[in-house]
Amino acid sequence: MSQAIGYAANDASTPLAPFNFTRRAVGPNDVQIDILYCGVCHSDLHTARNEWNNTLYPSVPGHEIVGRVTAVGDSVESFKVGDLAGVGCMVDSCQSCLSCGEGLEQYCENGFIGTYNGHAFGGGENTLGGYSDHIVVDKRFVLRISHGEENLAAVSPLLCAGITTYSPLRQWKVGPGQKVGVVGLGGLGHMAVKIANAMGAHVVLFTTSPDKKEDALRLGASEVVVSRNKDEMAAHVNSFDFILNTVAAPHDLDAFLSLLKRDATMTLVGAPASPHPSPNVFGLIFKRRRLAGSLIGGIAETQEMLDFCAKHNIVSDIEMIDIQNINDAYERMLKSDVKYRFVIDMASLKSA
Amino acid sequence: MSQAIGYAANDASTPLAPFNFTRRAVGPNDVQIDILYCGVCHSDLHTARNEWNNTLYPSVPGHEIVGRVTAVGDSVESFKVGDLAGVGCMVDSCQSCLSCGEGLEQYCENGFIGTYNGHAFGGGENTLGGYSDHIVVDKRFVLRISHGEENLAAVSPLLCAGITTYSPLRQWKVGPGQKVGVVGLGGLGHMAVKIANAMGAHVVLFTTSPDKKEDALRLGASEVVVSRNKDEMAAHVNSFDFILNTVAAPHDLDAFLSLLKRDATMTLVGAPASPHPSPNVFGLIFKRRRLAGSLIGGIAETQEMLDFCAKHNIVSDIEMIDIQNINDAYERMLKSDVKYRFVIDMASLKSA
Repeated sequence: MSQAIGYAANDASTPLAPFNFTRRAVGPNDVQIDILYCGVCHSDLHTARNEWNNTLYPSVPGHEIVGRVTAVGDSVESFKVGDLAGVGCMVDSCQSCLSCGEGLEQYCENGFIGTYNGHAFGGGENTLGGYSDHIVVDKRFVLRISHGEENLAAVSPLLCAGITTYSPLRQWKVGPGQKVGVVGLGGLGHMAVKIANAMGAHVVLFTTSPDKKEDALRLGASEVVVSRNKDEMAAHVNSFDFILNTVAAPHDLDAFLSLLKRDATMTLVGAPASPHPSPNVFGLIFKRRRLAGSLIGGIAETQEMLDFCAKHNIVSDIEMIDIQNINDAYERMLKSDVKYRFVIDMASLKSA
Repeated sequence: MSQAIGYAANDASTPLAPFNFTRRAVGPNDVQIDILYCGVCHSDLHTARNEWNNTLYPSVPGHEIVGRVTAVGDSVESFKVGDLAGVGCMVDSCQSCLSCGEGLEQYCENGFIGTYNGHAFGGGENTLGGYSDHIVVDKRFVLRISHGEENLAAVSPLLCAGITTYSPLRQWKVGPGQKVGVVGLGGLGHMAVKIANAMGAHVVLFTTSPDKKEDALRLGASEVVVSRNKDEMAAHVNSFDFILNTVAAPHDLDAFLSLLKRDATMTLVGAPASPHPSPNVFGLIFKRRRLAGSLIGGIAETQEMLDFCAKHNIVSDIEMIDIQNINDAYERMLKSDVKYRFVIDMASLKSA
């Protein structure tokens, strides 16, 4: 075992605060990583504040981890001390079910173990995440980082926001010649715009905020549609090959479903706390459209995404914070006051 | 032009009554058909009573037509006088859009022309349907009937109920080794059970009526689940390759979505007058499931379905009525008091 320090929520209503705990000893298949940077995902806030009613306390959030390997177990050949490494939303799964067999650990039939609050997905035990100085993870859930050293902080959000958008874009075969919609320009949406653009698609960003137009074009959108403008929306009816909807707040899905071509799909990656208005069944029937969901991505696909992003020079647009400012960051995140992802500089943990 | 007689609704609130009208002269590409039988679809009632607020009166319903060819135009080689012929939900489409080019006339980008109330789909004009003695239809929208002569009345519902269920079962590649759910045992559901069974799937019928169990097994279901029984439902969680939902009444979609395997689809073919409760997005995300719709089928696929049904000895289970009893039949249909489709014996029209 090793002594670790992090920031934890001790209950749903008090701010995150310094927290000492232990990490397991490095087993034969384990990789120990000194955490350099950890992205701040909205799920972190949901969990810290028990908004999904499943938090085990104390809770150390964080599942967008980039760091450097400091120890490896005897059976680890894929990593050596000094390597860069990443950890995303999962740290284990059963490895024996059909989904694990297909490399889709996120859909593990027996529940994957989340990087934090792991019991919520079926692991039975609590896990403590990336708002901490180091972590010990089975080698099968450690990712290689092939981005250069100069911008590692901006790589960390790829581990959740990146794969959450890359996976459905790949699943639905987004590529050149296609018109692809991205709904919402937040942490997920801005990654979706960059990745879909790099895949060669014509990307249309939907936003309720006209002032995000310029930024969306800079990030790689070919067009920006203000979704509150009915005329702008009407011009795109029946024209999209795929729409990735990243908005978690309840909203009118039909406004976007009606923009899909026949046989096209809108995939939801945000889960609203209260339901969306019920989609119009006629809109599905009369164009044979599909409404789908998608959850992060498997480990192999996460590696593929990281390599794809490195090749295309894609990182997240971030604002770096010290861990001491995490509670303020949560408040700003609630107001969408971040472009587009907070990343914690974990060096700040030691300077506390 | 030729003189025709049928039954029409003259407004939303009065019963259907005899109605004289004219059919167009047989053009070079037309087929004239003496109607032997016409199935009674719930859409007939919706239209007669203007429940979709788009009915042009007088309205002659009926789009499950089987009859005998009495005349053909000079350019018609595919049919000759004396042949059996079928007409379904469509009598024309633009033939120039992408969907028509792919043989998916039901999704014609310019709107197909419905067999009745055709303007509702974009045709601009009213059309008068199968509750009549004869009809004149472009050869491209006339189907060959390869069933034997002995049970033609029971063939007629294939033209709508048959293709509406066959098309999504084919689209989602239902076949041997698959577990397929059918929700609802009415006109559509009983066809879905027969067809999915003939395709080689293990068919599970979901019904709210325990007294339909025996009938469902007779029709080809391998299992019957009473959907109000939570324990019965729970035994099937995450196990279906595909579910075809034929129920138009608003109901809890999540109860069925949760029974789908990862990456599996539930297709809706019934459109409720008021919305279903909004589906749970977590249920879509955590198994990458899909909710889809489907509308009848194209002409080529309708022919394929008719040939498939003839090969597998599939017809509808019907109750034959005289046209004079159509208003009573509508009342019984509203109470689901039919096993499983009313078919009008059009000979009764002449005996009036």
